[in-house]
Amino acid sequence: MQYYPEVLRQLIDELKKLPGIGQKGAERLAFFLIKRPHENVKSLSDAIIAVKEKIKICSSCNALAESDPCRICSSSKRDAERICVVEESNDMFFIEKMGEFNGMYHVLQGVISPINGIGPSDLKIESLIERVKHSPVKEVIIATNPNMDGETTALYLHKVLSKDGVKVSRIARGIPVGGELEYVDEVTLMKAFEGRTEMK
Amino acid sequence: MQYYPEVLRQLIDELKKLPGIGQKGAERLAFFLIKRPHENVKSLSDAIIAVKEKIKICSSCNALAESDPCRICSSSKRDAERICVVEESNDMFFIEKMGEFNGMYHVLQGVISPINGIGPSDLKIESLIERVKHSPVKEVIIATNPNMDGETTALYLHKVLSKDGVKVSRIARGIPVGGELEYVDEVTLMKAFEGRTEMK
Repeated sequence: MQYYPEVLRQLIDELKKLPGIGQKGAERLAFFLIKRPHENVKSLSDAIIAVKEKIKICSSCNALAESDPCRICSSSKRDAERICVVEESNDMFFIEKMGEFNGMYHVLQGVISPINGIGPSDLKIESLIERVKHSPVKEVIIATNPNMDGETTALYLHKVLSKDGVKVSRIARGIPVGGELEYVDEVTLMKAFEGRTEMK
Repeated sequence: MQYYPEVLRQLIDELKKLPGIGQKGAERLAFFLIKRPHENVKSLSDAIIAVKEKIKICSSCNALAESDPCRICSSSKRDAERICVVEESNDMFFIEKMGEFNGMYHVLQGVISPINGIGPSDLKIESLIERVKHSPVKEVIIATNPNMDGETTALYLHKVLSKDGVKVSRIARGIPVGGELEYVDEVTLMKAFEGRTEMK
């Protein structure tokens, strides 16, 4: 039985494919869109298409960007001696938002995950090794996620990059600022103790 | 400072305008869309535009529909003696989903809300009165939401429609099926007692 007009059902089906949006959420979004002025809805639709058509992958750092090389790779103001390695482009954007890191990036486009059959050769690791070899990089900061796959990847990168005499560091794991000890898992607590710094 | 490529920022801004979607949610959706194949993203974009271009308002019941008169108003299989009055088209679709009601609908396109300055003349009440006068309607079932505005509207409709000698009924308010007495507010509990039915 078909309750919705066909075009409305199609829109709900498309919206349901988005992450975190179920039947109820999709219905709510669809009715919201129907009520909005035509030009607002058009600008959403255009923005969706534009992002697919205009976003490229930077051939140097593999990040999503509007130009190749990307804004960061082509900037002379960035510190070319430090490369921050992240799993995905969004991790890079989040670090950029922080505004504290002024080095370069390298996006792995994933993470070593034996359970999902993803090995080092499936990631942009070879090109990272090449970059480290042929540029003035002194430190590689590994900012993969602090979970099992991220740690595996960090260990692997440490192993292959240390050969080149470059410093390999890992972002700190510890209690989130504003968090409370009692709500943190034991592994995080252990990492917080291991990574303690002297107060001066 | 601009962290995201321009087209990506535009998409995130557009997605943030959707109900229940904040900055983080919009970023998550945007990155999801970037990773999806082009044709899938195109079909979402097309569905958004199609729904705006093809959805009409039925001139009889005021529901969102692909044709005018809508599928229900033009059907000879529906019971023309009962009209269910709802606030919005989505309420109609939800009732249709239930599959138990076989009558017609009338969408008010809103609800009487003195606090928002919405009076009876802002709603499709005049056309409901006309429909009741000029059709074989025997019962008007008022299915506005059981909140203050919905109840106000129900009382108003009862007053103006009773003149025509038509039966005006109100959907039952009570404990939701699967709910528990202790979690229900007092007014709902009172309505559940008032609306009790004899067990036979």
